[in-house]
Amino acid sequence: MDEIKAGIQYAFQTHNRLTLAVSGSGHCAMEAALFNLLEPGDTVLVAVNGIWGQRAADIARRLGANVCELLKAPGKYFTPQDIEQGLVQHRPLVLFITHGESSTGVLQPLEGLGELCHRYGCLLLVDSVASLGGAPIFMDQQEIDVLYSGSQKVLNAPPGSAPSRSVSEPVLCFTREKLLRRKTMPPSFYLDMGLLANYWGCDGEPRRYHHTAPINSFFSLREGLAVLAELGLENSWERHRANCTRLCQGLLDMGLELFVEEERARLPTITTVRLPDGYDWKDITAFLMDNHGMEVAGGLGPTVGKVLRIGLMGCNSTSDNVDRVLAALRDALKRCQRSRL
Amino acid sequence: MDEIKAGIQYAFQTHNRLTLAVSGSGHCAMEAALFNLLEPGDTVLVAVNGIWGQRAADIARRLGANVCELLKAPGKYFTPQDIEQGLVQHRPLVLFITHGESSTGVLQPLEGLGELCHRYGCLLLVDSVASLGGAPIFMDQQEIDVLYSGSQKVLNAPPGSAPSRSVSEPVLCFTREKLLRRKTMPPSFYLDMGLLANYWGCDGEPRRYHHTAPINSFFSLREGLAVLAELGLENSWERHRANCTRLCQGLLDMGLELFVEEERARLPTITTVRLPDGYDWKDITAFLMDNHGMEVAGGLGPTVGKVLRIGLMGCNSTSDNVDRVLAALRDALKRCQRSRL
Repeated sequence: MDEIKAGIQYAFQTHNRLTLAVSGSGHCAMEAALFNLLEPGDTVLVAVNGIWGQRAADIARRLGANVCELLKAPGKYFTPQDIEQGLVQHRPLVLFITHGESSTGVLQPLEGLGELCHRYGCLLLVDSVASLGGAPIFMDQQEIDVLYSGSQKVLNAPPGSAPSRSVSEPVLCFTREKLLRRKTMPPSFYLDMGLLANYWGCDGEPRRYHHTAPINSFFSLREGLAVLAELGLENSWERHRANCTRLCQGLLDMGLELFVEEERARLPTITTVRLPDGYDWKDITAFLMDNHGMEVAGGLGPTVGKVLRIGLMGCNSTSDNVDRVLAALRDALKRCQRSRL
Repeated sequence: MDEIKAGIQYAFQTHNRLTLAVSGSGHCAMEAALFNLLEPGDTVLVAVNGIWGQRAADIARRLGANVCELLKAPGKYFTPQDIEQGLVQHRPLVLFITHGESSTGVLQPLEGLGELCHRYGCLLLVDSVASLGGAPIFMDQQEIDVLYSGSQKVLNAPPGSAPSRSVSEPVLCFTREKLLRRKTMPPSFYLDMGLLANYWGCDGEPRRYHHTAPINSFFSLREGLAVLAELGLENSWERHRANCTRLCQGLLDMGLELFVEEERARLPTITTVRLPDGYDWKDITAFLMDNHGMEVAGGLGPTVGKVLRIGLMGCNSTSDNVDRVLAALRDALKRCQRSRL
């Protein structure tokens, strides 16, 4: 567990002691963050430009929080000016924002957001499930208060060749500040950061039984973090950047249109390409699976029916895989065109 | 998923359509049940005779419920008279009771409790994590409204020889009644039974994406349920009963004292034996692990320092294993006695 903690601290670029892994699937990390940060009546500003903002807003509402949404069209990101406007208008306790919006393929720039939030007495909560290891994030330097990710994306834990999600241990890093300020207990015992912090040896107290950890998965997560550390964060970022660029160029060369127009706003781990006219996305994804043994996803949330999503993460992010997916897609576009009525 | 549902329905002896597995470790099932049953201000009566009642009361308090505790000494069970007194006094919306109290080794008789609860307009919620497959339970016939268990005890999923908990998919069966009566949303999206029911195809609607299920674990759970169905519930109950009886007799023959005095109240899956004078439980469990490759647990919650807990579940419940643990324990008692001061 101590080694997992060290691995997460490296991946998150933080010295935060309150660093641990949650025992559950991807959604658990988001709930763990919100359960522990929010109390009924607290104002939370949620930046919504895809499904993860929508989801965070849904959970925050369940907790009785006063939820304010900052909206942006899917495929777009938030500027510091957008955020500041929201902070001024709503004076939230917490800002939720998604670093890697996997439903739209957007990479949210984080520069300056932490400082901005703190100027307005607001905590910054960042979802980096789809981006960790694939795009730079610096928790301490960027003044992020709470950060979480998943083990099944770039970390490839448990190991497997499918880029889709599987069992995952979300990893979480937390600020103590809000925990100590709480007047009420979080609704969940299972995800109570105070109890988890003790279980993970983050509070300097003797460890007490909390729940029985999914040991096998923890070993996988430890290995995923070790592989990332051996490769080095900078190399991992560069690898994802280079292969994403190669993929995007290939898609453009095929006459396809990328969903995210601005190059710097493209998520290096998941590329969204607009569904061309005359195709049904289900034909294409089924064809790729049946004929090329390859899983390419359709849209999710606001992008359903509009895009195909190509995930190349961790060990799957290679130039060979880029070429393979481009060739397969070329084949699919030839075979799946529906005859015009 | 449909096969898992059918397997759970068999194991629970129910035709309840709202039957599914939750993606998380053991505690998740308890939270899922309480999150979906209780709203702030609801009165819940919690039968506390060990750690699981304490835990349920803790979670219910977090949810803002009015928690009334019905107390019984660890090692004892509740009679229908105890329960009726509590129902009359507190008029709860829900009664929580533990079928297999793994911290004390008590098997709670359930006969008549459902009918009793319903006479007082109360729902019956039963924790059968440690007992399912090891002792008879009949959800429909016993009028249990909500029942949950874990995959890692008698079901031995994922397969392994350690009787302790590991990654688990708790299985859950739920009444629709309370779900439809709710005025507020459950605090958790991840564990929202309405959303999970759709995801598991329990509501007759087309399935929508909710979260990505831990597929590997679901295959293990399916296999565990299939093994139980092939063996047959009656045979599984009888096997656990017979091996528990053999174990208890062997312990008594060694001059040891069982923590649960009444034979019919002994949990067939976990046997609690009083720590004899002159021993430290940690010496014994460490000795058994180091010299016999065997994990016997110390106490949990109210039994810490008082008992050893021997779990023989599913494929581990064999007469050979009973003899092996008795021989190992005999060795440990010879070697671990502390010299009197």
